[in-house]
Amino acid sequence: MTLNEKALELHAQWNGKLETVSKTPVKSREALSLAYTPGVAEPCKEIAKNREDAYRYTIKANTVAVVSDGSAVLGLGNIGPYAAMPVMEGKAVLFKEFGGVNAVPICLDTQDTEEIIRTVANIAPAFGGINLEDISAPRCFEIEERLNEMLDIPVFHDDQHGTAIVVLAGIINALKVVQKKKEDCRVVVNGAGSAGIAITKLLLTYGFPNILLCDKAGIICQGSRNLNYMQEKMAQLTNPRQETGLLADAMKGADIFVGVSAPGIVNPKMVSSMNKDAILFAMANPVPEIMPDLAKAAGARVIGTGRSDFPNQINNVVAFPGIFKGALEGRASRITEEMKLAAAHAIAGLVPDSELSDTNIMPQAFRPEVAQVVANAVKANIRP
Amino acid sequence: MTLNEKALELHAQWNGKLETVSKTPVKSREALSLAYTPGVAEPCKEIAKNREDAYRYTIKANTVAVVSDGSAVLGLGNIGPYAAMPVMEGKAVLFKEFGGVNAVPICLDTQDTEEIIRTVANIAPAFGGINLEDISAPRCFEIEERLNEMLDIPVFHDDQHGTAIVVLAGIINALKVVQKKKEDCRVVVNGAGSAGIAITKLLLTYGFPNILLCDKAGIICQGSRNLNYMQEKMAQLTNPRQETGLLADAMKGADIFVGVSAPGIVNPKMVSSMNKDAILFAMANPVPEIMPDLAKAAGARVIGTGRSDFPNQINNVVAFPGIFKGALEGRASRITEEMKLAAAHAIAGLVPDSELSDTNIMPQAFRPEVAQVVANAVKANIRP
Repeated sequence: MTLNEKALELHAQWNGKLETVSKTPVKSREALSLAYTPGVAEPCKEIAKNREDAYRYTIKANTVAVVSDGSAVLGLGNIGPYAAMPVMEGKAVLFKEFGGVNAVPICLDTQDTEEIIRTVANIAPAFGGINLEDISAPRCFEIEERLNEMLDIPVFHDDQHGTAIVVLAGIINALKVVQKKKEDCRVVVNGAGSAGIAITKLLLTYGFPNILLCDKAGIICQGSRNLNYMQEKMAQLTNPRQETGLLADAMKGADIFVGVSAPGIVNPKMVSSMNKDAILFAMANPVPEIMPDLAKAAGARVIGTGRSDFPNQINNVVAFPGIFKGALEGRASRITEEMKLAAAHAIAGLVPDSELSDTNIMPQAFRPEVAQVVANAVKANIRP
Repeated sequence: MTLNEKALELHAQWNGKLETVSKTPVKSREALSLAYTPGVAEPCKEIAKNREDAYRYTIKANTVAVVSDGSAVLGLGNIGPYAAMPVMEGKAVLFKEFGGVNAVPICLDTQDTEEIIRTVANIAPAFGGINLEDISAPRCFEIEERLNEMLDIPVFHDDQHGTAIVVLAGIINALKVVQKKKEDCRVVVNGAGSAGIAITKLLLTYGFPNILLCDKAGIICQGSRNLNYMQEKMAQLTNPRQETGLLADAMKGADIFVGVSAPGIVNPKMVSSMNKDAILFAMANPVPEIMPDLAKAAGARVIGTGRSDFPNQINNVVAFPGIFKGALEGRASRITEEMKLAAAHAIAGLVPDSELSDTNIMPQAFRPEVAQVVANAVKANIRP
């Protein structure tokens, strides 16, 4: 049986990967009168007096909503809210298994930006945070920005920021391996969707001075055609020499390549044209922009992918459970740039310098301390 | 420590009564690739081909949303969505503990009818049913009706129909005890809010020909002032002789009194004016319309309340878990009048005729077979 066949069979057996479970058994009249009426009126009255007590008496303390409209699911595209459910349930499972955070999958029967914003704002009271997932660009930018302005709980689009944080963590460690400084690096990010733009933003915040963002038409510069509003904004912030050309042109002399684009889009010649000791993250999934063995043969030194069957897996699962865990524990109202940078440093720091190598820049996802280490870093950077 | 103090302390200890739990551990790369990427794409693709497969591969099969806007919570009134959370979590706990049904509390940050309808419709894909809770009348009628028209999953306002079903179950058994026929009974329902109206409707459907519905101003009849649209509709369907007067007038010669109104509103004289072998359900909570000992002394024969510390507790918990369990197992798209009547008969039938008495008309809520018996009755009455 193939992995895909087994996955389908298991999903049928599970019949839903998640369940809701009471923390307290209700097997007697007394238990019923404590967890429900009449006793339940007491915490209700306390919260009515002081809304902050919701974090004391309800699941808001440790529960996030995993919200999608099914418009950009994995590599499957716009498959809608029903077909998106297995992914959102899976994400909710990872929140609990990796971070101890309760999570509820919410799949929306609308792809209208205003409807999505209103719906998420309306259901926010029960939740301590909102994880947006698999919502297509550029709608995802506006939805996240406006919800963060409206709500007093953090709203975090993991496809953007989770990805950006793990990429930055990998780059921090890869630069140590190749002994280069960020100031000296030419960085190419290929793919100008939600992940590519967020990666570019976080790398700018981190201090890379020279980033080229590319899409299908090549290097994005001021005046490029057919850009959405966020890509136009990125054209202002990147490409300091206003270079033009295709991806192959961008990659000439580059020190770092980050692909969140399409399978097989990078060829060995492009890799060979990069600077010495090149760092190459080919994160298209399941088939990367270039296979690691080809990239290695063409001269790349530190190679990462999204896959677990190659070294240096760049995987969000080392980031989002700890980020929300920290935000919830610290009662953050937003996840700021400082918190994202701190999370990236914490993830990078999980691999001691003495163990760093071409093929060991990322911590193992299953190390049990990962989420708490990330959470602590996030908490320490919450502004009062 | 009083029960209320203990309830508050326990709620702080629990810090949320509910948690989400993965049905499968994710402790290895293989487990991750089966429950999440890349394996999760397989059930996604199946559901994209055939939406019905959501019931095969996702939590939709066995999960309801418990939705409130916090406008009419217990006896606390309009305390809003945050303060309503402990009740909705409690309800979710009961769904799982009594019926094995997963439930997610959703508290809405809006009390606008249109917003509520849109929001619930937008989040429906993840759920197999919607339990509306503690939404004030008359908005609750329109919200439930319109959502049932829009959605292909059952939408059920438990304050209305759950209450109506357990009241009917109690009356079915009480009539056996006093050996009266429904055709001969004068029925008084006091309280013309969501519960009182739903009780009246279900008793009409069951076949009581002579029901008087009362509110604070007395007996509702055609031409009564200040009625909402649903009360006006009830004025057409009840009160066949178009009687006028106060509650005391309605109760003269009545065989059955059902109170879903206010503490202490019924006095012994009113009970004495009822017909011989009177059935009296005084369900205001926690303080009933008249205390059972007073009602007994005044001549009532079968007395029920909402409380667990008196005989004949009329408690929704014997109804809603089984009703949703049956609706989900049978993939019902609505909960029809037939299903409600079947549920009431099933609940009544849990007390064998040989055990019926003045003080034993309702099954114990903690009998483990209750939910499945109710579910089977509901399932058997789903129209294809």
